[in-house]
Amino acid sequence: MFASRPVVHPMEVAAPAPANPAQQQPAGVLMKDLPGMPGTPSGLALRVTQFLLATVSLAVMSSTSDFASVTAFCYLIAAAILQCVWSLSVAIVDIYALLVKRCLRNRRLVALFAIGDGITCGVIFSGACAAAGITVLINGDLQMCSENHCASFQTAVSMAFMCSFSLTPSFVLNFWSTAFAYSRVAAAG
Amino acid sequence: MFASRPVVHPMEVAAPAPANPAQQQPAGVLMKDLPGMPGTPSGLALRVTQFLLATVSLAVMSSTSDFASVTAFCYLIAAAILQCVWSLSVAIVDIYALLVKRCLRNRRLVALFAIGDGITCGVIFSGACAAAGITVLINGDLQMCSENHCASFQTAVSMAFMCSFSLTPSFVLNFWSTAFAYSRVAAAG
Repeated sequence: MFASRPVVHPMEVAAPAPANPAQQQPAGVLMKDLPGMPGTPSGLALRVTQFLLATVSLAVMSSTSDFASVTAFCYLIAAAILQCVWSLSVAIVDIYALLVKRCLRNRRLVALFAIGDGITCGVIFSGACAAAGITVLINGDLQMCSENHCASFQTAVSMAFMCSFSLTPSFVLNFWSTAFAYSRVAAAG
Repeated sequence: MFASRPVVHPMEVAAPAPANPAQQQPAGVLMKDLPGMPGTPSGLALRVTQFLLATVSLAVMSSTSDFASVTAFCYLIAAAILQCVWSLSVAIVDIYALLVKRCLRNRRLVALFAIGDGITCGVIFSGACAAAGITVLINGDLQMCSENHCASFQTAVSMAFMCSFSLTPSFVLNFWSTAFAYSRVAAAG
């Protein structure tokens, strides 16, 4: 299965231009590249942003000496590692697609990205929420910031939240495109 | 704007049957009712389940005497109230649609349901994660269950998690159907 197809079509294929491009599109291929989708420069920028935010969150949380005593902080670190691996993998695929000028508009590939984005978004968001609950407890409810690294906890949590928010457009775009592609397949067949 | 349309068409409209029903469908109307969509019995069952789970979570958390001292528990209560109001509202719309035999397949209405489901799912999930972080801290990390209502906290948190999981199919179905409907509009015009 070819998961991508060339952006530049060879000139010798002198097929007549289709009357209605939307109807002539091969079934299972998305209609157009929206900004932020895989294989576009803005999509790559989103992935790099997610990777950097997750890395900063991971680094700041790991730099505190007492994160291991709280389960939620350990979970946030695990979630940030997963996020780093996922964003880096998709970014590498994006860079490859941009370098060889192939657009990643295969519906199965976009569905895979949508599922991966949904899972990693849920994991990093849940980690950020759990760590935020603890941070607010230490900072606001118990007023124990003198004994803890409140600033580091808050920085790590806010970076994790920003990472999950930057994942949302990727997820929504990929999910939307997958539904779009499958509706075309359903209409064609 | 009519947000719904009758399921039973009058018999006197003796129009010929369309050759391809998918192509003859009016633009902006979804192709078919999937189980779990608004206006279907399974959709109503999902809404009632969400309402009951959120109510139990709210009742159990409110019954503890010291929830007000932890911000995350107060947030969970607020999220559960929002979830109860949303699920009850959509359940009432579903009951009305089932009673008058109209199916809610308008794309704007389904998009509204998808957005509402996405927001409430995010809110109740974040509340459940934050409260879970605190519960695990009290129960596992600090071993302070003798002084706290650990069983109540755990019950409320697990009900909130189950509520957010029961919201996911509603959200995914509505979002998928919205994209499906908009792709038909794009293909038609």
